[in-house]
Order: sequence, then C-alpha cells, then structure tokens
Amino acid sequence: MKVSEFKLKEFIKKVFVQCELSEDDAEVSSDVLTFAEKRGIKSHGARALRRYVDGIKTNKINPHGKIEILSDGLSFALLEANGRMGMPTAKFANELAISKAKETGIALVSVKNSNHFGVGSYYTLESCKKGMIGMVFTNTSRLGVPTFGLNPMFGTNPIAFSAPSTGDENFTLDISTTIVSRGFVDKASKEHRSLPEGIAINDKGEIETDPNIVIECLKNGKGGLLPLGGINGGGHKGYGLAVMVDILTGVLTGFLFGKHLVDSAYSSTRMSHSFLAIDISKFIDLDSFKENMKTMTTELTNSDAMPGMKVTYPGEGSLKREKLASLEGIEMADESYSSLEAVSKLVGINLDF
Amino acid sequence: MKVSEFKLKEFIKKVFVQCELSEDDAEVSSDVLTFAEKRGIKSHGARALRRYVDGIKTNKINPHGKIEILSDGLSFALLEANGRMGMPTAKFANELAISKAKETGIALVSVKNSNHFGVGSYYTLESCKKGMIGMVFTNTSRLGVPTFGLNPMFGTNPIAFSAPSTGDENFTLDISTTIVSRGFVDKASKEHRSLPEGIAINDKGEIETDPNIVIECLKNGKGGLLPLGGINGGGHKGYGLAVMVDILTGVLTGFLFGKHLVDSAYSSTRMSHSFLAIDISKFIDLDSFKENMKTMTTELTNSDAMPGMKVTYPGEGSLKREKLASLEGIEMADESYSSLEAVSKLVGINLDF
Repeated sequence: MKVSEFKLKEFIKKVFVQCELSEDDAEVSSDVLTFAEKRGIKSHGARALRRYVDGIKTNKINPHGKIEILSDGLSFALLEANGRMGMPTAKFANELAISKAKETGIALVSVKNSNHFGVGSYYTLESCKKGMIGMVFTNTSRLGVPTFGLNPMFGTNPIAFSAPSTGDENFTLDISTTIVSRGFVDKASKEHRSLPEGIAINDKGEIETDPNIVIECLKNGKGGLLPLGGINGGGHKGYGLAVMVDILTGVLTGFLFGKHLVDSAYSSTRMSHSFLAIDISKFIDLDSFKENMKTMTTELTNSDAMPGMKVTYPGEGSLKREKLASLEGIEMADESYSSLEAVSKLVGINLDF
Repeated sequence: MKVSEFKLKEFIKKVFVQCELSEDDAEVSSDVLTFAEKRGIKSHGARALRRYVDGIKTNKINPHGKIEILSDGLSFALLEANGRMGMPTAKFANELAISKAKETGIALVSVKNSNHFGVGSYYTLESCKKGMIGMVFTNTSRLGVPTFGLNPMFGTNPIAFSAPSTGDENFTLDISTTIVSRGFVDKASKEHRSLPEGIAINDKGEIETDPNIVIECLKNGKGGLLPLGGINGGGHKGYGLAVMVDILTGVLTGFLFGKHLVDSAYSSTRMSHSFLAIDISKFIDLDSFKENMKTMTTELTNSDAMPGMKVTYPGEGSLKREKLASLEGIEMADESYSSLEAVSKLVGINLDF
C-alpha cells in the first residue's frame, strides 16, 4: 500500500509524544524512522517503531534522560546519554561534531549509555549537507562470531559514511560489519524461509541455514552470524572491522563492549556511538571535491557490467527511493502496516491512513 | 634461513642511500620494510625492496622530493609529497597528526602525490605507542571490480587501525578491502598454483582461478579482484569500503582516484594517504582504556572455538612473530633472499649474510 510520508511521520511523532518523549525528541525520532522507510531500509522504518515503544514502556529507554557532557575540547567530546532516546541523542552529538569540525577541520564526538539510533546514514547525510564527510559508528548487542569462534562476541556494529557529490547526490555507505543483520534472520524465520549458505553457524561451528536454530543459538550464546567476508570472502577482516567499531565506541567511551551487550526480549541494549565529521573545505575547495565525486560515481556507473546487470554506487538506490517516496508516497509492506496497527492499539492513537 | 634484523635493516638502508635517499629517509624506509619482514608480512618486507629501487631508478619515486604543506590548521593538514619516498612521507604526516591530536583530541593529515608507504600498521603502531588510536588509509592502483562490474575501478585500498592494550600489546588490523592483494595473485602465478574460488573474476565476469588469466585481465582493464565479502559474503560492502578509502585519500586530496591509478611495470603509481590520530586520554583515562582493551582481547581469545582451532585477535600473531624475530632472527623465505641478492648485484652493495 501507498502511505503519505507526512501522515506516517505525524503518526510516529504522536506515538512518541504519547510515550512521554518531548516534542523535539519525538520529532527527530519520527523523522529518522520515516527517512529509513522512504529509503527502503524497512527493518529500520515503520516496522521498528514497536521496539522503541516497548523499550520506553519497559524502562529500557528513558524518555526523560538528559545528555551530560563528560569531557569536551576543541575537536572532541564525550557524552553521557543516561539511557535516553537514541535518535535525538545521535542528532545532538553529530551536530556537535559538525560545529567543532567547522572550527578545527575534523571532530569526533562519542556517546555512552545511549539507545538504538535508527539508521546511521541519517546523521552522515546531515554532515553531507553541511559540506562535510560524515562517519558514524555504533556497537550493538552481541550476535557475530569471531573467525574460528563459536560464541557471539560482537554486534552487527555498523559503519555509516557519506560524502557529498554535485546537486543533492552523495556517496552513502551504511553497512553492518556482519554479512546480515538480526532482522534478516528474524524475517526468514517468520516467512519460513531458509537462510543463504554461509551467513551463520550453529553451536557446533557448522554452516546453519535454519533461521530458528540460529535464533536459538544466539539465545544460548553459542553459534551466530558470520562477519563480513564469511567463509571464503575474507571473514577475518570483517571480524576485525566489527571489533574496530566496538573499540571506537564501547571501549573509547569506557562503556559496554563485546559480549556484554545483550538485547532484552523487548528492546535493544544500551550502547555507545561515535560521530566523526571532516570539513572538506579545509582540505580542498568544496566544489572541486564535489565535481570529483561526481566524476568518480559517473565512472563507476558507466563501467562495464556483467550480462544483464548494472554497476551502482552506495547510496544511489536509496536516494532514488527517497525521492520517489517524496513524490508518490511510501510503498509500505503489509507487515509494516500491521505493525503500525498493533502500535496504534497499544498506545491508543488513531492510525488515519 | 635465519637473518639478523640488524643486518637486514643495515643492508636495506645502504641500498636506499645508494639510491640517493637521505640518511634519515633511508633509515625510516629500511625500518618499515624490516618491520614488515619481522611481522611476517613478507609481501611488504625484503621482497618489496626491488620495487622501490626500480621506482627510484625509473624516476617514479623522486629521492630528492620535498614535502610542502598546502593547508594546515588546528586538527588537519594537507601535504604535497612531490613524488618523494612513501615511508618517510607517511611517518612525517602521521607524526603531524599525532602532535595535532595531542592538542585538540583528534587530527587528520592527508598527503597527495606520494608513493607506496609499505605497511600501514607501522604508522598506526607509532600512534599506539603515544597513547593514541591510529588509523591509516591509502589508495593504490586499480585492480578491484565493483559489485556486478567487470572493470577494475579501485585498488586494494587498505585500512590500518591500532589501539593500545596493556604492556606492549595492542589490537592492530591491517587489511586490504579486496579479499586478497595483487601480491597473492603474482605469487600463485610464480608457484604454478590455482587461486581459491571466488576471489577474482575474468573479463566475462566468471569466477577465475588461473592467476595468469587474472594478471592478463588486470593488464587489459577487464576482470579483476573481488572486494572483501566476495560473491556470498557481502561483497557490495567491501566494494563500498574500498571506494570510501578512495574518497578519504584521492578525492579528499584532489589527486588521482579510482581507475586513474595504474602501476607501471617497475613501480607503484603515485597515490594519496590519510593519517588519523585520536588522543584516547581526552576521552577517558588511558589506563582504563588499556585495561578494557586487555579484557576484550582476553575474552576473545578465551571464547569457544571450532574443533582444533583457536580464536585470535587482529595483530596478536604479528606481534608474536615480531618478538620472536627480535630474539631469534628473522625466518626468511629463499625467494625473499634471492630477491635481496638480485638487488645487491643491481646496486653493487655487498649482501653480508
């Protein structure tokens, strides 16, 4: 079904206000979920609303938490989020990084004791709009197994990265450092599908394609998802990148890392994020940079492709979907709509679309 | 055979001085190659000397090039290397990043028109010793194909990352963002071995296991190496990471990027690097950080492993090899020694081991 982005955003905002978020925090949180839905990252769109609502209702997320600045200097800051909502926390931290980078060229702002912030590319694209390269890291609850290992010792630990091109175009990478995310496994389970070979192992270390066994393995802490690269594609590098993200977040903030991050049945665990902003104009002329980005992406999309295929670049498809959704409304899956209906009943707010 | 690290280092230094590098530049360059040899990164150790010598002799590397500072501020700098030797250039840039980060918390120094700098982890470990997180990026000549693509459009584009743990321990990731590097293919060709399935494609986009065909494909610009993740392990993410590195180096410095970097028969192409330093003590107490790093790596190495295997963490094995080489001498492959003998004859410097 087609859904108006404004109605979707308004509904989500009302739900969050009903959950005692401030108007401002509800606005940002709703904007991040709507952004994900428009860009086709459905797992982090409308369907994700329920987990935030459950998180607040079970006190995993504190709607009244306040940000404290623990340390602060020319190009850095460390923030304590006190368990507050992830999206407004992330937006605050990222804007702080941008304003510091504007002065000094680059800045890193890290946050501890925060909650799930939605899609990282929401924040890196904010940096992009200000003529910056944006990078975002977050750790998440354990589900990935090290090379040759059996126990989940790190999360999907995503990396998001954006750099501006000409017009409103940009290069935007937003990836987990495991091959797939938890949502991928849950979806396969719900739809009674097998997992592709080589993305997960069971408690004996064998390739496992039954999503229900993988979910059971994750519950028991033995077996889990394989890091980017998998069995034959350089998995030890994905393992290293996942732990690198943990170091840049959980270890750098002195908060939880590795196997100590475990989700509850209702909500994500408390986590740490880091926001990096690089002011391009300090290095070279911003317009030249953008022109070169355009040259690069054009060379990529014009390069020869396998029969029947086309070469794209990261962020190209998401931007197209976002623009189309702005023009024609969001194409929403039945499952996402049902999820919104359930939230509507739960909090007593009318779903008028 | 066993080789003394001091004799190896002295020989390489003499060779570089003979090639008109300054004493200081020869010292650093020799130290980087010896470091790689000790840590077991043989492709970047003694065996690599010949390509630097050839690079200088064919004017691809300018032994007299001087570094110019093009732009400079509190937390950033952009340097023009004027084609000088990569190692001393990289060491200079990295030290500049460290000194700036000491003031402001984090700094990024980028370099254009430089040459191959050896292993990135040499520089990230220098940051580590100063209580910093070090990150290094460089682009390299084209050999990786985009997802669904046929043309090599980016290099091995490595990422190096170090973070200090207790004692002299550290977490050090030093990886190409393609599954394997060019050296891996060349070695397979020389030893008449097939490539593993799924690391390279030919000009038709089919999986190619004949290293000679892959080398021919690279020469013709059709077919090449697959990005980290390969066919079934999330290769589109490796593709994105490789281009990200290109943006953080070639595009940010306004120099060559993507398919425009092509090696000559004798030497690597001119390239760009970026050096990031994060002063940990600005965020949290450095000793607590190190203790947490030690906890993390201990938890990883103590975690359950597949039958007959052991979980290690990035940098663990390299450090062990480095220490053993310091104690007992470097275990050098015959091939590497032969390569040194050839250099010895070429430049007329006696190989006294």
